[in-house]
Amino acid sequence: MVTKLKRFLIGRPMKSHELANEKLSKLKALAVLSSDALSSVAYGTEQILLVLITMGAVALWYSIPISFAVLGLLAILILSYRQTIYAYPMGGGAYIVAKDNLGTTVGLVAGGSLLVDYILTVAVSTSAATDAITSAFPVLHEHRVIIALLMILTVTILNLRGITESATILMYPVYLFVFAVFLLIIGGVYQWMTGNAHVQPPIYGAAVPGITLFLLLRAFSSGCSALTGVEAVSNAIPNFREPAPRNAARTLIMMGLILGVMFIGISLLAYAFGIAPKADETVVSQIAATVFGRGVIYYFIQAVTALILFLAANTAFAAFPLLAFMLAKDRFLPNMFMVRGDRLGFSNGIIFLSILSALLIIASQGDTENLIPLYAIGVFIPFTLSQAGMMKRWITKRPAGWFPSFVINTIGMLTTLTICLIFLITKFSQVWTIFLFLPVVIFAFKKISEHYRDLADQLRIDVTTEKPEKKGSVIVIPVAGITQVIRNTISYAQSLSDDIVAVYVGFDDEEIKKMEKKWAEWDPGVRLIVLRSRYRSIVRPLSKFIDTVEWKKAETDHVTVMIPQFITKRWWHNLLHNQTSLLLRAYLFARQDVKIATVPYRLKK
Amino acid sequence: MVTKLKRFLIGRPMKSHELANEKLSKLKALAVLSSDALSSVAYGTEQILLVLITMGAVALWYSIPISFAVLGLLAILILSYRQTIYAYPMGGGAYIVAKDNLGTTVGLVAGGSLLVDYILTVAVSTSAATDAITSAFPVLHEHRVIIALLMILTVTILNLRGITESATILMYPVYLFVFAVFLLIIGGVYQWMTGNAHVQPPIYGAAVPGITLFLLLRAFSSGCSALTGVEAVSNAIPNFREPAPRNAARTLIMMGLILGVMFIGISLLAYAFGIAPKADETVVSQIAATVFGRGVIYYFIQAVTALILFLAANTAFAAFPLLAFMLAKDRFLPNMFMVRGDRLGFSNGIIFLSILSALLIIASQGDTENLIPLYAIGVFIPFTLSQAGMMKRWITKRPAGWFPSFVINTIGMLTTLTICLIFLITKFSQVWTIFLFLPVVIFAFKKISEHYRDLADQLRIDVTTEKPEKKGSVIVIPVAGITQVIRNTISYAQSLSDDIVAVYVGFDDEEIKKMEKKWAEWDPGVRLIVLRSRYRSIVRPLSKFIDTVEWKKAETDHVTVMIPQFITKRWWHNLLHNQTSLLLRAYLFARQDVKIATVPYRLKK
Repeated sequence: MVTKLKRFLIGRPMKSHELANEKLSKLKALAVLSSDALSSVAYGTEQILLVLITMGAVALWYSIPISFAVLGLLAILILSYRQTIYAYPMGGGAYIVAKDNLGTTVGLVAGGSLLVDYILTVAVSTSAATDAITSAFPVLHEHRVIIALLMILTVTILNLRGITESATILMYPVYLFVFAVFLLIIGGVYQWMTGNAHVQPPIYGAAVPGITLFLLLRAFSSGCSALTGVEAVSNAIPNFREPAPRNAARTLIMMGLILGVMFIGISLLAYAFGIAPKADETVVSQIAATVFGRGVIYYFIQAVTALILFLAANTAFAAFPLLAFMLAKDRFLPNMFMVRGDRLGFSNGIIFLSILSALLIIASQGDTENLIPLYAIGVFIPFTLSQAGMMKRWITKRPAGWFPSFVINTIGMLTTLTICLIFLITKFSQVWTIFLFLPVVIFAFKKISEHYRDLADQLRIDVTTEKPEKKGSVIVIPVAGITQVIRNTISYAQSLSDDIVAVYVGFDDEEIKKMEKKWAEWDPGVRLIVLRSRYRSIVRPLSKFIDTVEWKKAETDHVTVMIPQFITKRWWHNLLHNQTSLLLRAYLFARQDVKIATVPYRLKK
Repeated sequence: MVTKLKRFLIGRPMKSHELANEKLSKLKALAVLSSDALSSVAYGTEQILLVLITMGAVALWYSIPISFAVLGLLAILILSYRQTIYAYPMGGGAYIVAKDNLGTTVGLVAGGSLLVDYILTVAVSTSAATDAITSAFPVLHEHRVIIALLMILTVTILNLRGITESATILMYPVYLFVFAVFLLIIGGVYQWMTGNAHVQPPIYGAAVPGITLFLLLRAFSSGCSALTGVEAVSNAIPNFREPAPRNAARTLIMMGLILGVMFIGISLLAYAFGIAPKADETVVSQIAATVFGRGVIYYFIQAVTALILFLAANTAFAAFPLLAFMLAKDRFLPNMFMVRGDRLGFSNGIIFLSILSALLIIASQGDTENLIPLYAIGVFIPFTLSQAGMMKRWITKRPAGWFPSFVINTIGMLTTLTICLIFLITKFSQVWTIFLFLPVVIFAFKKISEHYRDLADQLRIDVTTEKPEKKGSVIVIPVAGITQVIRNTISYAQSLSDDIVAVYVGFDDEEIKKMEKKWAEWDPGVRLIVLRSRYRSIVRPLSKFIDTVEWKKAETDHVTVMIPQFITKRWWHNLLHNQTSLLLRAYLFARQDVKIATVPYRLKK
């Protein structure tokens, strides 16, 4: 039943050699990896305007130079990550680059920051998409946690089905969104040129009394939230078809171009149509309404915008498992993140991300507004570290023509560092928790790594000298009565050892006498030892007795306790048996050098 | 840690022979077993008045004859149960009496009805006590589910501590309540005789237009809710000090007298002071206010009334585990209800009752009003069956002077049967679910009994002919690499058998070659078989291989799979290991005749 449901949801298991088919073409990779970055277009310009409007509508013209500054930063980031892709063709996320050049701890800061950030991405983007839906259908508002959770479930199942399959499905909404925004820009430019819009833009270059550099920087850093998600491509190089680095680099450039045009287009239109941010309507919605009126095209644009906000979560689902895999390979995360599932994806990473983001949604009751600045700084810290790592690399290796590359990374690093500082200063109350969770995550990484190192030390073997040695053995069989189960267990024990002891734990004299008599009558060729339990516990006297066995036969190194266990025909039959065997197992298992053999006895009725 | 907390809450474990000290004196037994019955005084009269008031205040005088009718029924029930106690000195609940005389199925109807009823008792009485508290402190109203759950937790812990200890604690509130009601009655009679109360009772015997027999019967059946809990003593005979039957009979008579005086006293005072039921104040509260004014005594009476409502739950906690024990002894409930816990109580029954009633509270959100009729009919069905059983017994055995006893039981049976029918007719919408859950419970009893019978058939052994037989044995060791763990496991296997196979499941050619080479180098004296897994599953190829082993060596009957398992030093280390061994165990365990030996390997760091 469970297997069938799994097959239905996830699909048939795939063979390992099918992995090559699971690689992404550029077109599909762009869809999967860019949804996070592209979705930022839906709110990037608005973030800038929201800061500027605090100085009055006259200040809105500043959005133009600020948007171009963001565009410049985007260009630097794209060029910088393009360099990283070629330098790290096996996947060069911030974790790899920082670790490789700046040491493990710095790498872990970048990696940990990104891991947490992906969880936030899923929570924030599904909440945003839920808000878009509940704005349209207010009756759904009270069910918004459920809606967000259903979205997470959908993306999870899609990703468990495998990367190509999810890419095939997700391609359509992503390209529809790109199409919609370009349609909006072209329509907007046409309206503006024909002068049909009848609006007056704010005067460019007008003096704004009281404007400060601090405010402008804040507007700039807010606008930079449009750049989150740019790093996804460089993390995901292993998912590309060969030649992977070249395909990844081209995809990155393509993404940069589309993102840049869309972002600056929206910013320019917002200025041209004199649009100011409103509490109850997004900037994109205002532009769309101005350009096309509130008709079919307007609703189409709104719908695909909601869809892309939801799909931003998918980028995290593509990137998180790969990053977790890399951390697990370096022994900073549990092994399980290295296991490929039935459909060749890193299912454990997918499920882990899904559960944590769902918990975050539940804990915040779907109200994730406060998490956005945290989410933004969580991206810019690894951006900065990654580029600092690249700087170090250029200086250290100095390949031919390294200097321009170094300059690009330096400018990029300084800009992203500045943005980090601006975030810290201007939004400290919302981002201070990063100082809490980053140390915790890194501490966990180090502890895990330590455990694996200790483990390897303990398990290491010298194949030339350390061979297995045969020793003596004694088998202990707890018996509750004389039944077919005990007969079966003794029969099994006799095939393994000649030193067998049956132990009966009795509660009162009468039943002990009865048992001894019946055992003598049966005479199975095994001596019976009777223990008396005054506290009605079977486990404790038995455990004490086993201690005695160990003490008596110092030469016998292996003590095996044989525990019969019923295999019932129906699950509920298990409730009808005292699970003494499980209890005994758990209790004895905590002891050194007692082996436990479970002897199944299958009930036929 | 857990053990310490348990010790603190429950107390030290007790030896089996201490059971004799756990028997109850009459004084304590009365406290533990009568709280349910006595608490009915708090609402019994009110239930009658609530029906009568529908015909106007003039009809209230009928409460007097009706109360005397209830008193008569109480006397019959007490006499009837007294007879049962002497007839069944080992405990004669409705289940035993009905089963013994009317057959197993009828017994199960009585037993099942009572079991469910005890769960309802706990839910209803804790809710009622919670309502009493939140009436006094309305700010607590939104936390009423939590309050009710805390009450259940308190009673559960008290009962887990053992029966004498809970009796010692519970004695005070029960006797305080008895004291409070007698104080009220004496004060009331004094006020009435001195004429200080200045109230006019309704005219006794006044004609009430439109009054019907149906309405009067309904009022009578509502008043009979005061009789719930009377059966507790006869169920609990084994808890009494020797001579148990005589002590139990005296306790029962004592309880009947106290209950009767209190009930008729309240009814008479209510009539004498012309009290009509009000929506927002109980009848007892009105009487207390009239007699003593709203001073200290009034609040004392209100407080102990709330307390006794809560303690009614305790009667169920005393009776349920005993009834479950009896049903389990007859194989109609799981064995676990027969196990005595650390403090010699039937802990599983206590915990089971606690969990189910807590679930009921949560499901109903603490609003259990609707359950009261169900709860009442659930008591009167076993009342009827128990007395019918006694009737049958008298007719069959015909001991000397049996006829008066037969008459008592017959009158009792007919009355309780009538009450059942009145409940069914007048409150069908609230009690119909009994036709749903009773068949379900009885079906479950029968299924459980069937399973135990099947089990006994399968396990039965002929001690003269069926002895254990020694057979061949082969050991299979899954290996993941060459480590100290595998060395330890092979060493153990060699001490048990000469026929050992190590199996390695590889995912690609390279790692398989490497493993084969290293194994040859190590040469542990065990042959290695390599399997290739195309689906990255370790369990499936291994399981298929074991099938082959079974097929190849038909003469070898015992196949043992040895699974090494880490015992980690810290619990969270377990998360860092793929739990392949657990998965393997679970998967292989579902197969016939594969034994699984778990070989612990204790990590030192």
